[in-house]
Amino acid sequence: MKLKKSWINSANDAKSQFPLNNLPYGVFAMPDDDEAGAHCGVAIGDMILDLTLLEEEGVLVVSNEPVFDLPFWNEFIELGPDAWAALRTRLEDLLAEGGDDTVSGDADLKSRALIAQSAVEMQLPIVVTEYTDFYASRHHATNIGTMFRGAENALPPNWLHIPIGYNGRASSVVVSGSDVRRPWGQLKSPDQDSPEFLPCRRFDLELEMGAIVGTASDGPITVAEADENIFGYVLLNDWSARDIQAWEYQPLGPFQSKATATTISPWIVTKAALEPFRCMTPPREVPLLPHLQDVGPMLYDIDLTVTLAPEGKAATTITRTNYSALYYSAAQQLAHHTTSGCPMNVGDLLGSGTISGPTKPERGSLQELSWGGKEPLTLETGESRCFLEDGDTLTLYGTAQGDGYLIGFGECTGTLLPALKDPYKR
Amino acid sequence: MKLKKSWINSANDAKSQFPLNNLPYGVFAMPDDDEAGAHCGVAIGDMILDLTLLEEEGVLVVSNEPVFDLPFWNEFIELGPDAWAALRTRLEDLLAEGGDDTVSGDADLKSRALIAQSAVEMQLPIVVTEYTDFYASRHHATNIGTMFRGAENALPPNWLHIPIGYNGRASSVVVSGSDVRRPWGQLKSPDQDSPEFLPCRRFDLELEMGAIVGTASDGPITVAEADENIFGYVLLNDWSARDIQAWEYQPLGPFQSKATATTISPWIVTKAALEPFRCMTPPREVPLLPHLQDVGPMLYDIDLTVTLAPEGKAATTITRTNYSALYYSAAQQLAHHTTSGCPMNVGDLLGSGTISGPTKPERGSLQELSWGGKEPLTLETGESRCFLEDGDTLTLYGTAQGDGYLIGFGECTGTLLPALKDPYKR
Repeated sequence: MKLKKSWINSANDAKSQFPLNNLPYGVFAMPDDDEAGAHCGVAIGDMILDLTLLEEEGVLVVSNEPVFDLPFWNEFIELGPDAWAALRTRLEDLLAEGGDDTVSGDADLKSRALIAQSAVEMQLPIVVTEYTDFYASRHHATNIGTMFRGAENALPPNWLHIPIGYNGRASSVVVSGSDVRRPWGQLKSPDQDSPEFLPCRRFDLELEMGAIVGTASDGPITVAEADENIFGYVLLNDWSARDIQAWEYQPLGPFQSKATATTISPWIVTKAALEPFRCMTPPREVPLLPHLQDVGPMLYDIDLTVTLAPEGKAATTITRTNYSALYYSAAQQLAHHTTSGCPMNVGDLLGSGTISGPTKPERGSLQELSWGGKEPLTLETGESRCFLEDGDTLTLYGTAQGDGYLIGFGECTGTLLPALKDPYKR
Repeated sequence: MKLKKSWINSANDAKSQFPLNNLPYGVFAMPDDDEAGAHCGVAIGDMILDLTLLEEEGVLVVSNEPVFDLPFWNEFIELGPDAWAALRTRLEDLLAEGGDDTVSGDADLKSRALIAQSAVEMQLPIVVTEYTDFYASRHHATNIGTMFRGAENALPPNWLHIPIGYNGRASSVVVSGSDVRRPWGQLKSPDQDSPEFLPCRRFDLELEMGAIVGTASDGPITVAEADENIFGYVLLNDWSARDIQAWEYQPLGPFQSKATATTISPWIVTKAALEPFRCMTPPREVPLLPHLQDVGPMLYDIDLTVTLAPEGKAATTITRTNYSALYYSAAQQLAHHTTSGCPMNVGDLLGSGTISGPTKPERGSLQELSWGGKEPLTLETGESRCFLEDGDTLTLYGTAQGDGYLIGFGECTGTLLPALKDPYKR
């Protein structure tokens, strides 16, 4: 697939993350708007096309009732795959060089409907109904397992059979740009008899991608159905308190260690935009049970990087990996999620799990990069890191390389604020 | 506290679960209504007072905007503790013998606003925003731990310091009376090399109570604040697939084993109604950290029973215990839930964890009652049970005994349907 040209020049730059081929969906507000004033929009080059405005003015009609009147995409997503395809076709037409000139040919409408990305603040693109986090990178699971349980028991016996996951906390999902406060929690080092309640000392990132459920289901669905039911993907940083996790996670799994914040990119890249980048899951060491077997290429070739910038200093790229390094696809995770009859809803967010590749520079967390704090990472500023320090800004990027164009997610960034001195003082 | 008399005679019966002292909140529909037609109501004796109707007619004014116009209580709960107290006072006045005669003195209004409980179908009383399940009975944790890890390692090292919990799946919460379908899942017995995908063989109940968060929070809160933030309580049966759980739960906790269904009672009993029944948590073997310490009586003296009725046969009481058998109160659980900064919302549901007392007849799950399937339970019908069989109906009851009156939750019941023959056949 080649670049599709738009009459918005910045979208035709080979380095733009938002060419006409992409058309990712988000929610934006002018800095002085209140939340109710935020609009749904699509990124094109360095601009945003205001879909709420176009719907209000009758240029865009996707349903009998307005669906862009609320500042999140759930109402539109509820309309289903035919509506998803129809909107994409309509937007391609409105934004293509030589396409429908309703916007491009109307100077007044154009000036009102196109807003510079630099002028807005992005909000969460959806109401996250529920959030599930998986553990689908074999390299990550092996690294973590080796540190926690030794190389012999690194991969749990179920790992090659089940896309292991746990329920996360939807209320903790925030949009890129939100500051994250270092949490307090119970910590106990092996040499202590009892835990203490202290600020987390091992706060970490997890480089992930998130899949957004676009079609509800009410019983077990196949992997092929699950793939159909996914609306699109976001970048996702599942901030993790490793020391809280180590003490709390037995026997029922991570809880407060994962509940401080999970940051997602402001743009949802649709499955349609990612279609040219589909690739296969890796060969299976043991066959998957029939209900989880691969039914085609369901991962995507998306380059992922993470940068870390100490407060007021330049950023260092600390990891480079690829979404295709996962063992299980989001479709397989979603299919597994429904095996017990668990109802899934539009707006459910499924984190992939930390994405680590086979080599050290491809590891998706500081826990792995510093091998549990034993091998500090040296930044380009000369500083070293085992875990995050106050003021650090973490930024995730994801891009798929097409023929003369990129598909990008924007950035997924957040700055770590110091812990409160007394979390109970108001 | 003594019985408060109502002009509705059935509420004055010493065995009624719904005297004027109780006033629990629910959502009901006439059998031929669609969901949008369901109304908010309060139980009184064997009747329900229709609050949606009374609000429409101006008899009940709790806010400038209607709050009973949608078939769930979230809108009302959002108004906060002063509104909760004001509604209770108003309802006591409207329903008390010798109180305000707006309803009792108006034959037409009375006939429209009072509906027999036997004539309606109950729905979920709230939109469950998120669902967390805890593990707060020491007897239960010790029993399960002994079976899974041996008596030496029964109680995990963190258990006496943290109210252990995990995030559940809000979409799987259903109201009493909903059938539950036996799930499929991955099962692997110790003598097998690989798992199989089969219907669950060890489907179980968990006798719990649920606390409903009534005030949102956005950072750590104290135990006293957490107690203030709880709106009320429900009975809760966290249906559990033990064989799926045993294979999936390492290392990130239960997932599909808990996602088939969680049944709650249709009535929310408010904290105000339970006030006379407060009691202390047990003595602490090791002191709790300051942020989790007891600040007064925060458990309740509520007798809990479970009956099991095989299809078409009489019910046997299989367990009798008390809510006060827990080690951690819901307030302590909620306080712990916020330690990392996790935002809590109105409508969040916190399951207590299975409530087991110290002796065998007080155990709150079949896993414990049959000791992992080794000691079958004999029912009064002569049948035996290790785990649930298709067609079994489980019913939970909860009552607090006042001076000449009861506070009850109604029943929390569900019937187990057989597994689908092929879960992927439509």
